[in-house]
Amino acid sequence: MDETNSTKEISSTKAQTTSAEWMESFSEKVEKKDSEYLRAFTSSNHPADIAEVLERLDIDEAFYVFKLCDSEMQSQILVEFDEDLQADLISRLNMQEISPIVENLEPDDVTNLISEVSKEKAEEILNSLDREDSSQIRKQLNFREYTAGRLMTTEFASAFEADTVRKAIIKLRRVAKETDDIYLLYVTDSENHLKGFIKLKDLFLAPLNQKVSRLVKEEVFSIHYDTDQEEVARMFRKYDLVSAAVVDDLDRIIGRITVDDILDIVQEEASEDILRMGGVSEEERLNTSIWDSIRRRLVWLIFNLGTATMASSMVSFFESTIQSLVFLAALMPIVAGMGGNAGTQAITVVVRNIATGDLGPSNWKVAFRKESLIGLINGITIGSITGLAVYFFFGKPALAMVIFLAMLANLIMAALVGACIPMALKLLKIDPAIASSIFVTMTTDTFGFFCFLGLATLFLQYLV
Amino acid sequence: MDETNSTKEISSTKAQTTSAEWMESFSEKVEKKDSEYLRAFTSSNHPADIAEVLERLDIDEAFYVFKLCDSEMQSQILVEFDEDLQADLISRLNMQEISPIVENLEPDDVTNLISEVSKEKAEEILNSLDREDSSQIRKQLNFREYTAGRLMTTEFASAFEADTVRKAIIKLRRVAKETDDIYLLYVTDSENHLKGFIKLKDLFLAPLNQKVSRLVKEEVFSIHYDTDQEEVARMFRKYDLVSAAVVDDLDRIIGRITVDDILDIVQEEASEDILRMGGVSEEERLNTSIWDSIRRRLVWLIFNLGTATMASSMVSFFESTIQSLVFLAALMPIVAGMGGNAGTQAITVVVRNIATGDLGPSNWKVAFRKESLIGLINGITIGSITGLAVYFFFGKPALAMVIFLAMLANLIMAALVGACIPMALKLLKIDPAIASSIFVTMTTDTFGFFCFLGLATLFLQYLV
Repeated sequence: MDETNSTKEISSTKAQTTSAEWMESFSEKVEKKDSEYLRAFTSSNHPADIAEVLERLDIDEAFYVFKLCDSEMQSQILVEFDEDLQADLISRLNMQEISPIVENLEPDDVTNLISEVSKEKAEEILNSLDREDSSQIRKQLNFREYTAGRLMTTEFASAFEADTVRKAIIKLRRVAKETDDIYLLYVTDSENHLKGFIKLKDLFLAPLNQKVSRLVKEEVFSIHYDTDQEEVARMFRKYDLVSAAVVDDLDRIIGRITVDDILDIVQEEASEDILRMGGVSEEERLNTSIWDSIRRRLVWLIFNLGTATMASSMVSFFESTIQSLVFLAALMPIVAGMGGNAGTQAITVVVRNIATGDLGPSNWKVAFRKESLIGLINGITIGSITGLAVYFFFGKPALAMVIFLAMLANLIMAALVGACIPMALKLLKIDPAIASSIFVTMTTDTFGFFCFLGLATLFLQYLV
Repeated sequence: MDETNSTKEISSTKAQTTSAEWMESFSEKVEKKDSEYLRAFTSSNHPADIAEVLERLDIDEAFYVFKLCDSEMQSQILVEFDEDLQADLISRLNMQEISPIVENLEPDDVTNLISEVSKEKAEEILNSLDREDSSQIRKQLNFREYTAGRLMTTEFASAFEADTVRKAIIKLRRVAKETDDIYLLYVTDSENHLKGFIKLKDLFLAPLNQKVSRLVKEEVFSIHYDTDQEEVARMFRKYDLVSAAVVDDLDRIIGRITVDDILDIVQEEASEDILRMGGVSEEERLNTSIWDSIRRRLVWLIFNLGTATMASSMVSFFESTIQSLVFLAALMPIVAGMGGNAGTQAITVVVRNIATGDLGPSNWKVAFRKESLIGLINGITIGSITGLAVYFFFGKPALAMVIFLAMLANLIMAALVGACIPMALKLLKIDPAIASSIFVTMTTDTFGFFCFLGLATLFLQYLV
């Protein structure tokens, strides 16, 4: 590739900017404020790559490089940043600097940006736009966050059913000049009610004087503006959409959503679930400040400390039993821990399937029965293995029986709790990912100690 | 919506098939083999919706409904099923029934299907295809699974740089008739080396006698056939692609990948990570047979049992200490458990950021430093809270100090292990999601017991 050429070749083999050495040398250039090198870097790389590199710098350094770019490049880089960084950078710019950046943004990106910055800044930005744009954005800001209305862009190509293909192409051209990602032409009746769509490639195949209505696809995909973004993503995945129309209460088209936004949402929703299940705030990013990370994680840890205390007090109930048979103290974590592991397996499957939409009211019973049976059989198996091992090691058949029964009971409990809690939370409209795991471990720890030490107390005379 | 009309209106408000009542009544119709109702159902719904409903039936019932459809509908439903169900259904059909289904599939779907069925069946299917198709598919089957080469479809629209827009449109039309999802026209030199692409919408804006080379976009996105699908998905996300060209070793275009496949991959990879982190096989689906689920989960549980035994033997080392101070048995699970929670937080963040590509060699040091500091500060905080609580409850300052120190040490260990193990596994090219959590809990359990009981033994004289 010719270095002086402005063409950007981006291929799957390229990975220079991700190596530790490259990043180190880049950081040095930034520290030295080598503006010549940095300008050359920003003008010969894709905005997405530049954004990725800048996100790994300190905010002051990132800001320095950002300011070296022209306003068009700044817009393109800005939309690639995550929300916190966007808001942070904007707060460091004055209105003379912000205006040209905002002018280059697509309407939905402006809406996003405005929803992240301070109220005063938002008002300033809105006032700097021309009246039509700002009223459009104010309208969109009225939609609920994380819904189709917020996600959509208001620039789309459409034609009437009664139009000819020729006329539709003329309408398409008008929009195509200014809008980048057009894959479909939406078709409406004369009052903008959505009637269907035509793929651009089919427009090439049609005779110019044919009526648009004859080309319309059989399926009409429409998304109400108030639909949750998770549900929107589900529709895109299920029906393999690239672009879908957003409609108002009267089924009139008001915008459209394209698949690139959906790809980000699928990724974000998955990250959210993973982080929540791991007891981390869904907002924690790699570049979240360390104090924010600590604060958010501490909340969860303190909550966990509370539940750990419950399990601990269960043990203290049985102190006299442990006093007489101290090896019980060594065995009890196994019973509690295995319950936790089995419970985690159950909630993982249930929570994930709820999130993907594969598990819902129509098949809860099936899932519940399945998890119960798995709990029973895994309980018998793991209980037997542990029981046998204990028998060989301690030579006490009663102890083997106690640990077998405790393990069996705890693994069944783990399965029931693991299956029911996420379903119950879902019914209560709480995200099952956020709180399921803590309930499960609390239950399996406490119940595990209770079963094992309780049974040991009951059969104490056979254990000594 | 007119029931007799064949138009399928699919909107975000429709949710009938997901209710428990609807599913129950549908199951009844299937049991009664009400073929009239079922035929009407399959002909008036989207294949993706039909597939979703069939996936919730027994395999025999699903097969019964599937057989009621014509072969075109069968193809459309088949591609919506997950791989196991696809293979299962195909194995129940004879070649007379399979041939028309396969003929209606896109080449990449045929490749997928063939890679899932038995060798004999695969050979039979390949032989039933015409020679060109089958040699194409045999070629594609040589690419590694889960790479761009397997993912791509070999049907794409392309034109030479030297072509006029008019000629390019003629070439596009030829492909567009038979291929559904065309969004870009790829541009190559006369030897098929990829030079760039043109968006279809830009073809509408260009004069017919202009040279194609003048319309080509600045960026050239190319994906080598051997690129891992996770990396492919990362490129699509990063550069907001709808379609990307796949090239051979000489940079010649051999196929393309479209975003609808990527959406599925992003979702699948996320599910895989979530399931693996929860100790469940990434292949476990809701309709995995119960015996498969049990077998897969048992492997993990038995592995866990091994590590639990390690922690347990650590406790048995200190039996005499516990004997003299039995309340230590009640307190020790708190130290071990909190270490596990903090470690899980750390691996969750690290594993997820590795998966999304945000964390790599270029910023490992930063992440490591951050996690260590979080471990230190959270250790001090949680240790202090626990120490104070223990002091108030037991009135023993030495005991409070012992649990504070043990907790601090274990939370620092949790952070180090939580940050290092995923990074180390990544370097060893093992998926960090699969094994990280077990190492972390093993370490925090064992080390937590060791610190707490070890310190208690050391300071035994001040604790009684």
